[in-house]
Amino acid sequence: MLILGLDPGLATTGWGIIRAEGNRLSHVANGHLKTDNKEALARRLSHLDSMISALVADHSPGTAAVEEVFVNTNPQSTLKLAHARGVAMAAIARGGIDVGEYAARLVKKAIVGTGAAEKAQVHAMVTRLLPGVKIAGADAADALAVAICHAHHVASARRIP
Amino acid sequence: MLILGLDPGLATTGWGIIRAEGNRLSHVANGHLKTDNKEALARRLSHLDSMISALVADHSPGTAAVEEVFVNTNPQSTLKLAHARGVAMAAIARGGIDVGEYAARLVKKAIVGTGAAEKAQVHAMVTRLLPGVKIAGADAADALAVAICHAHHVASARRIP
Repeated sequence: MLILGLDPGLATTGWGIIRAEGNRLSHVANGHLKTDNKEALARRLSHLDSMISALVADHSPGTAAVEEVFVNTNPQSTLKLAHARGVAMAAIARGGIDVGEYAARLVKKAIVGTGAAEKAQVHAMVTRLLPGVKIAGADAADALAVAICHAHHVASARRIP
Repeated sequence: MLILGLDPGLATTGWGIIRAEGNRLSHVANGHLKTDNKEALARRLSHLDSMISALVADHSPGTAAVEEVFVNTNPQSTLKLAHARGVAMAAIARGGIDVGEYAARLVKKAIVGTGAAEKAQVHAMVTRLLPGVKIAGADAADALAVAICHAHHVASARRIP
């Protein structure tokens, strides 16, 4: 099964696709989707929507996941993020794909073993867990991390009789 | 020209469509779009997306407007609102339609004459400005108000030589 992880943002959305076969994970693809900050908000969101739709059409993931959003110190940044995240989730669900949501701490715990892990530790572990991966950047690494977290979660759910 | 006003929300999105001919405004339609709070967030957003797309396809508005969002006292409510608003704006822009954004104070000023107007005053004025209108509810009234504000704005922009 292919798993799509997304790290949504209005300016840059990281994405990563991994393959889960039993407990074995492998890297398929990752990258960034960018919108032009000179365009109006609605057009940027519509552009993001069509890029994610294209990603889903190209790879046909069986399931998807995003990080839960929390309100950070800059409310305007949080609002922009939430607009982009809403569009991303709707674009995936439009394809009939469920979208798992995981708290950032849970993602870190799944990858590094502790919810208090640093970003750099998470990225180093993503590289080890997906041999041969070439990560496009920080947002793509976060997207791959949430995809791996989702893979673990789906695998455990299946083991429950 | 038909103008679509939206008051987005995850549970209930108010919508209103008015016709602007020169300075004359008339009511076309208004209503509410609702999503099921027993469904997952991504599915609710995808449902909202398809309902707004259908609205745009049915009425072919020439332009659209939404209120600007502000961070209210409940950050979780604001996040939900921003997810829905992002989806709404993307769905409209997907149809090639520009989406104007107006601060709540500006909408009140356009309708009642003062940015400090009460909600009830705004709704009463919407009823007077659109003779014969039967308003579906509070969110639809807000949607019609932002559509009227946008009509005034577009009309003034045209008068500038």
